[in-house]
Amino acid sequence: MRMTDLIHKKKHGLALTAEEIAYFVRGYTNGEIPDYQASAFCMAVCLRGMNREECAALTEQMMRSGDVVDLSGLPHTADKHSTGGVGDLTSLVTAPIAAAGGLSVAKMSGRGLGHTGGTVDKLESIPGFRTALTETEFIDQVKRVGIAVVGQTANLAPADKKLYALRDVTDTVDSIPLIASSIMSKKLAAGAESIVLDVKYGSGAFMKTPEDAEKLAEAMISAGRAHGRKMAALVTSMEFPLAPQIGNTLEVEEAVRILKGEDPRGYGIRTVAARLAGEMLSLSLDLTPEEGLARAEDILRSGRAYEKFREWIGAQGGDVSVVDENRFPRAPYARTVASPASGWVSRTDTESVGMAACLLGAGRMTKEDTPDLTAGIVLRFAPCDRVEKGQPLADLYTSDPAKLDAAERTFLSALTFSDENAEPAPLILKTLR
Amino acid sequence: MRMTDLIHKKKHGLALTAEEIAYFVRGYTNGEIPDYQASAFCMAVCLRGMNREECAALTEQMMRSGDVVDLSGLPHTADKHSTGGVGDLTSLVTAPIAAAGGLSVAKMSGRGLGHTGGTVDKLESIPGFRTALTETEFIDQVKRVGIAVVGQTANLAPADKKLYALRDVTDTVDSIPLIASSIMSKKLAAGAESIVLDVKYGSGAFMKTPEDAEKLAEAMISAGRAHGRKMAALVTSMEFPLAPQIGNTLEVEEAVRILKGEDPRGYGIRTVAARLAGEMLSLSLDLTPEEGLARAEDILRSGRAYEKFREWIGAQGGDVSVVDENRFPRAPYARTVASPASGWVSRTDTESVGMAACLLGAGRMTKEDTPDLTAGIVLRFAPCDRVEKGQPLADLYTSDPAKLDAAERTFLSALTFSDENAEPAPLILKTLR
Repeated sequence: MRMTDLIHKKKHGLALTAEEIAYFVRGYTNGEIPDYQASAFCMAVCLRGMNREECAALTEQMMRSGDVVDLSGLPHTADKHSTGGVGDLTSLVTAPIAAAGGLSVAKMSGRGLGHTGGTVDKLESIPGFRTALTETEFIDQVKRVGIAVVGQTANLAPADKKLYALRDVTDTVDSIPLIASSIMSKKLAAGAESIVLDVKYGSGAFMKTPEDAEKLAEAMISAGRAHGRKMAALVTSMEFPLAPQIGNTLEVEEAVRILKGEDPRGYGIRTVAARLAGEMLSLSLDLTPEEGLARAEDILRSGRAYEKFREWIGAQGGDVSVVDENRFPRAPYARTVASPASGWVSRTDTESVGMAACLLGAGRMTKEDTPDLTAGIVLRFAPCDRVEKGQPLADLYTSDPAKLDAAERTFLSALTFSDENAEPAPLILKTLR
Repeated sequence: MRMTDLIHKKKHGLALTAEEIAYFVRGYTNGEIPDYQASAFCMAVCLRGMNREECAALTEQMMRSGDVVDLSGLPHTADKHSTGGVGDLTSLVTAPIAAAGGLSVAKMSGRGLGHTGGTVDKLESIPGFRTALTETEFIDQVKRVGIAVVGQTANLAPADKKLYALRDVTDTVDSIPLIASSIMSKKLAAGAESIVLDVKYGSGAFMKTPEDAEKLAEAMISAGRAHGRKMAALVTSMEFPLAPQIGNTLEVEEAVRILKGEDPRGYGIRTVAARLAGEMLSLSLDLTPEEGLARAEDILRSGRAYEKFREWIGAQGGDVSVVDENRFPRAPYARTVASPASGWVSRTDTESVGMAACLLGAGRMTKEDTPDLTAGIVLRFAPCDRVEKGQPLADLYTSDPAKLDAAERTFLSALTFSDENAEPAPLILKTLR
């Protein structure tokens, strides 16, 4: 087998066999296939695509390039994955609901990059919380508490890591089969038997259109099912931040409010979090989606999800009293942004809102940055609200006041004021099961 | 400027500016842009194409990456280039006609690779002939004799050399703008003011269809004119070997026959060689194409082309008596191939005929091989001839009798026998001026 022949086939739009894909992944991972052949191949995939069988084979081979976590000793293992957004703190709400419902949530989460946040960063804003557990501690905690969330501990899908780094510098990221196999190789290696995906579209998401988000969801579901996992996906809007608080500590605070029973007016966070948990319960316990959702709602309303959250935070060393008493640290500098106009806020460029939070210090511009966990934005309006000139729109928080001006400009550039009333886009566009 | 942005534009089918192309060629040549970005870019070009301005800019930048030969002291400098074929010995006939017509033919030629031959190898089969002249010897000989043909002496288009080596191992060779800029960067650097192209299509050519050959011809003409050169091109058939003798020494022998007045029945070599010379004379001396062709025919018929050939061979150290007395060395082993069937030879897969010659030792499988200059094939039938079973079809020559069986099998696999009379494809499909 020769890599040039594989490139040739893909360049001409032909499908590769499972053996050919295995040859590529093994050869690229062990260095026999050079970067320059892999990048030409990735560009051909970007422009010619891959069918479901190819995507499933690529997922499998990348999964097998590293450790595969063994969760077989745990009952009803379930995981969720979001393709990333702004104010997307669903994991903090969904995971304790699922665990309170009897599922085993053994979750490896990522850190934020660019305008999107990461669950591990958010959790680390709780004083004492440890995201670095050994594999034994991790599994033991799930057995005991039903839930543990850690940064990546095992050597998951090193082939994906190497290939993603190459794609990042050769403009070959935006291919649905390459994205699907990259995400799913790690999700499959993480070991859960049921996986629910939240695939976002819109100005703050990686996929800009509902059509692309749906295609990505279908590709991921197909790759997961090809490996025997139970799969479901929501296609949800990221045309507006999912929650009114953006930033690591601010998002944990928001999650706690929701777990305590609140539901911020006009924002999708509670609805999406409950729906994701409902799908997890449905898949794992063989309930209908309606039964799963009803059970998730019941767990959330009854306070059992909050109890599970407290148990979880405590088990990982976090100071539960901070959570109970809402004593989260605040950033030392704040600025209230006044509306520059009157009208309906008909559109919010969510990526710009995320970038404004990033400029305040909440995110990472590069992988080496350390985020300011207290930095962020609290929105004081809901999607498509009517606002008056001078009315407070948001509070910006930061540890570095020099960052406020640029963040305010970026935040305001995100807003479109309209003379006419507008309807928010539907939140959950589609459910794929 | 960032290479990823250039890749992104090209991936989305957008045209690059001349500055962006200059950035790429300079950065890639000096090593600042890595192979893996260049290969992703080349794949995007393969699948998205380039417009004429981009192709001209790429040609110019690759030309400027190395030496540009100064032929300004010579009158009426003219060059020809063939995209390569089997039995394509036109340079050996065309160049002396052009020189006898008053043009300065200062030609750098290549060596053969794969199933196609190279003029430098062919000339070296004349005892004593030197293809390695210094630049001063080269220019002086053209001044004195009107013609000199050497291997590449100067450092021509090193950017193309580096990029071509990368394309070769990433399956990104078959892109018309990349092929056109690769050829033309070297042709422009070689300095002639008039350039006539012979762009071949068919089973033995790089371009498989007349349409692709015409597109390649147009791209090369456009790139040449963008740099002030006088350009013309023939689109010719390589559906059949151009001459009945294939192999280095055999092709020189054939060229000498044609220069002495012969015209092998049914083969295109004499016609194409005269037409190319006519186009060169027309471009350089401002004659109509008809006047140019008439002058070329007159030079060939009168024996002045042969006289010029003898003068040229002598000037470069070749033994003219070998040419005059047809004392070319013969290979020690020969085999006559009998026809396995009766019928019309309706199709000849020219690439397979070339490969059979290569298997006999006439060509190079890799750049490091040394060709057997006496090896090759003499065809005893013309395109679409009627042949009878057992009739001699060809003589195979080699210095290694172990090679005869495989070569015979490959040669016979090239032939299609038909029960019906067939017409040969037109030889010169189109002239682009």
